[in-house]
Amino acid sequence: MRINECADWLRRRNGFLILSHHRPDGDALGTAAALCRGLRILGKTAYILENPQTTDRYTPYLREYYAPAGYVPEHVVAVDLADEGILQVNARELYTGKIELAIDHHPSNTGYAKETLLMGDRAACGEIVYLLLMELLGGVDQETATLLYIAVTTDTGCFRYKNTNPGTLRVGAALLEAGAPIDLNRTLFMKKNRTRLILEASIINGLEFFMDGEACIGVITLEELERIGVTESDMEDIAVVAGSVEGVETSCTLRQVEERTWKVSVRTGEYENASRICAEFGGGGHGMAAGGTIDGSLEEAKAVVRAAVEKHWKER
Amino acid sequence: MRINECADWLRRRNGFLILSHHRPDGDALGTAAALCRGLRILGKTAYILENPQTTDRYTPYLREYYAPAGYVPEHVVAVDLADEGILQVNARELYTGKIELAIDHHPSNTGYAKETLLMGDRAACGEIVYLLLMELLGGVDQETATLLYIAVTTDTGCFRYKNTNPGTLRVGAALLEAGAPIDLNRTLFMKKNRTRLILEASIINGLEFFMDGEACIGVITLEELERIGVTESDMEDIAVVAGSVEGVETSCTLRQVEERTWKVSVRTGEYENASRICAEFGGGGHGMAAGGTIDGSLEEAKAVVRAAVEKHWKER
Repeated sequence: MRINECADWLRRRNGFLILSHHRPDGDALGTAAALCRGLRILGKTAYILENPQTTDRYTPYLREYYAPAGYVPEHVVAVDLADEGILQVNARELYTGKIELAIDHHPSNTGYAKETLLMGDRAACGEIVYLLLMELLGGVDQETATLLYIAVTTDTGCFRYKNTNPGTLRVGAALLEAGAPIDLNRTLFMKKNRTRLILEASIINGLEFFMDGEACIGVITLEELERIGVTESDMEDIAVVAGSVEGVETSCTLRQVEERTWKVSVRTGEYENASRICAEFGGGGHGMAAGGTIDGSLEEAKAVVRAAVEKHWKER
Repeated sequence: MRINECADWLRRRNGFLILSHHRPDGDALGTAAALCRGLRILGKTAYILENPQTTDRYTPYLREYYAPAGYVPEHVVAVDLADEGILQVNARELYTGKIELAIDHHPSNTGYAKETLLMGDRAACGEIVYLLLMELLGGVDQETATLLYIAVTTDTGCFRYKNTNPGTLRVGAALLEAGAPIDLNRTLFMKKNRTRLILEASIINGLEFFMDGEACIGVITLEELERIGVTESDMEDIAVVAGSVEGVETSCTLRQVEERTWKVSVRTGEYENASRICAEFGGGGHGMAAGGTIDGSLEEAKAVVRAAVEKHWKER
């Protein structure tokens, strides 16, 4: 589907429910709410289905779009959802196999929907919905711009990640012009809560380096999580911490989940061999970010991870 | 001066030397080198004066533009320099009072140069030189784009700071399109060296909060600097660490410089009263960032800072 075809598809219908993926991030939530708001401005009935895994920081932006209990949609739309298997948990039973339109930027989109607007070169799904709303409405209001700004900056680390491209920055410019507040960056990208910062400090202080400092292992024990008082939202994307050290190509984070069970996250840079490393202990993922689980003592788990990293060292 | 007038001024002259400010950042250095390169592409003789305070990360980009010993310029140009008083240290004796053209984005520019191209609404001086080179050359090559990308991202924290505006993002888009490598973000904004990270962890662990957690004081002692092995470049912009805690409006960093002497940095958020706080102990600066020096024991210095913060609490 092209953007204008997708716009036509939406124009000809009414009664929408918008879904996204489990463990939703700013792109999933911001894009869903922005599309919902745009459809309402177009005169449509549209809601998003409240995602039970939404973190607190996003909730204030979303409330007004939540579908009331008992809302029966005529058309179900998914955004930023690559695969029905990772649909938000409260939609799986009712809506699996019933998604009519998917708007997505994941090249890996499985084609689960009847119609798909897929733009695999876009850094964020928010960019696609921006273009779609420009087609539908000729512009975006300040609220919509704010939602889309949250979407675009989340998926690009506020324009820092490698996926940022000229198109991303141009959409960002248009959203600021439409009134998205630049102050959001401070809240979303430049502030961290105290427990998160103390957790990060603890990981940094405990880092062990190998391969001439080009690889490192960071550890988070249950005892420490307890001591610091860490909550689930403090743990978000915690694997980036070990990877933030200059000169480190491959970083591994071992998080204790039970006495003798460790969740491993591996992040790599230019060699993009994280999934091959994790496959060594039965895990998987992408080239730059993968994970798995190891049973054993901390020393045993570290040895397994280290051997896996060394085996695939600088393998592309 | 307008951009086209500045372009004409440069076109009619030759034999340039480009200067910038002391303790140069990526905007000062990237802008100077980009202008130099652009002038060379235009067929001119142009050099930058090597700045002895340049940090290692920038040197590889700059070497080919350094003026040879004994170079006698016909025209001296300054970029990103608000005040001749902060000229790079090795230019003060020779070039104070001799700057013919200033290209700057600081609204506070003192007008020290004969001609000034001042665009006070631009987030980075690099944006202005981009517009100038577009006027002079109709485009920028990959090398120039890279230098300007370093400039623009440095002054905006890679498009995160409050000064980022639609124009900044559009220039960023054009620079990426001209070949500036997005991978630079990883080196410049997502990686930190080990000692810096350990120093940050130590500051975080020692933070003391007051005013219901809306203010905090971080401390760096000489003993700690020694223990961690901190170098001057690890200390760059260290005051942001205490300010990165969620909920903190006013953050203070006390850095021991002698047994009983403390350098104080204050950062504030929306109240922008940092300079008034620091005036209490003889310091000064801007609304969001100011500093000063306090003599005494650590406890005495902390008490002075705390009293100053409390006195001006939430004063706008």
